[in-house]
Amino acid sequence: MNIHNILIHLQNTVDAFSFKPRHLDQLRQALPHIPITVASDTKDFMERLPEAECVLVWHFKAPWYDKAPKLKMVFTPAAGHDWVDEDPSGRVKTHYGSFHGRIMRESLLSMMLYFNRRMGKSLDDQKNRVWGRLGYNDCTALFRQQVLIVGLGALGESMAELLKAFGAGVTGVKRRVEGFAAPLAVDRVIPFGRLEEALPHADHVVLLLPGGAETDGIFTTRHFDAMKPGACLYNLGRGNCYREEDLLHALHDGPLAGAGLDVFAVEPLAPDSLLWHEPDILITPHSSAISQEYIDLFIEELLEALHQAGFCLEKNHL
Amino acid sequence: MNIHNILIHLQNTVDAFSFKPRHLDQLRQALPHIPITVASDTKDFMERLPEAECVLVWHFKAPWYDKAPKLKMVFTPAAGHDWVDEDPSGRVKTHYGSFHGRIMRESLLSMMLYFNRRMGKSLDDQKNRVWGRLGYNDCTALFRQQVLIVGLGALGESMAELLKAFGAGVTGVKRRVEGFAAPLAVDRVIPFGRLEEALPHADHVVLLLPGGAETDGIFTTRHFDAMKPGACLYNLGRGNCYREEDLLHALHDGPLAGAGLDVFAVEPLAPDSLLWHEPDILITPHSSAISQEYIDLFIEELLEALHQAGFCLEKNHL
Repeated sequence: MNIHNILIHLQNTVDAFSFKPRHLDQLRQALPHIPITVASDTKDFMERLPEAECVLVWHFKAPWYDKAPKLKMVFTPAAGHDWVDEDPSGRVKTHYGSFHGRIMRESLLSMMLYFNRRMGKSLDDQKNRVWGRLGYNDCTALFRQQVLIVGLGALGESMAELLKAFGAGVTGVKRRVEGFAAPLAVDRVIPFGRLEEALPHADHVVLLLPGGAETDGIFTTRHFDAMKPGACLYNLGRGNCYREEDLLHALHDGPLAGAGLDVFAVEPLAPDSLLWHEPDILITPHSSAISQEYIDLFIEELLEALHQAGFCLEKNHL
Repeated sequence: MNIHNILIHLQNTVDAFSFKPRHLDQLRQALPHIPITVASDTKDFMERLPEAECVLVWHFKAPWYDKAPKLKMVFTPAAGHDWVDEDPSGRVKTHYGSFHGRIMRESLLSMMLYFNRRMGKSLDDQKNRVWGRLGYNDCTALFRQQVLIVGLGALGESMAELLKAFGAGVTGVKRRVEGFAAPLAVDRVIPFGRLEEALPHADHVVLLLPGGAETDGIFTTRHFDAMKPGACLYNLGRGNCYREEDLLHALHDGPLAGAGLDVFAVEPLAPDSLLWHEPDILITPHSSAISQEYIDLFIEELLEALHQAGFCLEKNHL
């Protein structure tokens, strides 16, 4: 496998997700013999596509493959198939990003520690100039807690690594566990069918499920009811896996003590959503992967993939 | 070394710092042959002290050693000498707690991730029902950052371990570094005299200095001025090591972007302190070690120390 040019179209409304001059410099230094072009816009990208052998994109539609007879590789920072279609003919291989866990696990921990350390109380007390030292007796530490990761893929494994470093116990839940060897940082892996047995033991339940018909409403009132009293729930996957009214019910009249939500059934979350003004819900706007290092990690992964594919990179770029 | 009784007086205004029935059960199971008494109050404790061979206390004054001729060991959960005086005669050994880092590092991380993940913005947006997804571009991840720990003792080493697991670079600062081997999780250790050279490279500066005349005002305006623009400062040691007006100046007109403060020059922090209403300061009321597991960790350390001293414990208690 060899390529003779790279075409880049990696602009995004989120600036941290956009390709920057420093990334172009890094690529040119690592691959000095390969012409690299950054498309100025989608029209420019489409005009250059017929000659492109390798593209770096946020968006790629299935019909475009017919317009790119020389294309050999598609690289996208996206973790899933939301915006990049695979080649229907199977000729061109798509590389999806798998680095997101390194950023998202920090976002997850920011939420877990917010609840464990009662930061809501700290912020309220600070606003009221209150020295509330006697109100922290129910703070808890992750090193004595159990975390249940529902949807154990690359993201969940990265999170489990960090949770293990804190000393937490980690159970992973997968749709199918046959033949799956639990990663080192995960104490046990159970099939989704046994989720209800595991829920009463988990202090933190992390949902990392993909979207789509298969996961629609998969986390039901039975699951909310089975949670340990005082437990917290986090959703950093997709917002379709439970009904938000069930989550609110579990918070008001059930075992749920807090929820850190990055994804929602409808995004942006509607201004009249009942979720906004819940004191025990933390809302982030599908931003758990947004960080300055995002495209840097993508470039590292790209260069590693090219290296694995047999490309000769200038040294010091891996 | 052997002891024939244990006397316990471990009540604290902070409930999480108080000895509970579960701890008595645990001790009695581990040491079934040793009579264990929990004093009902200080008067009761003082009456029983003459017969005591081992005491577990929050407070012990130097003159009390003369009233305890049979005393061999003093155990206190406290990390420092604030409340427990050492035996002036040197006869009785005092064991101070060294477990605090396991709790305090989670408190530190809650603050670091609050700033890195722009949680103040999230909470503001949530209150205003705003989907502010385009405002997270300056989020940063610990795995690309440098942390400077000023006062590298047991606490700092425990924090460094966790920061390493995140992928952060860690530099430790000690008063004296001669003959000190840097712990595995610390990239380098420098003497306090070289602090100004290290400050421009640190994204997070963690102060863990003890109180007392030696550290009074030791972190000066020169140090604040030398900090990296955008850096955050955390104080989980004692509040005497800088002037709070210097910190405010560094925040308003200097390089400081945020501060997580658990300790203050005067505690409780006065209602009219200018620190309370700073949007980029997080205030916690000297609570970074308060957690449900506090006395559990102390008991574990006590049993380990007794084991090391040659006591035969019932198995399964270590």
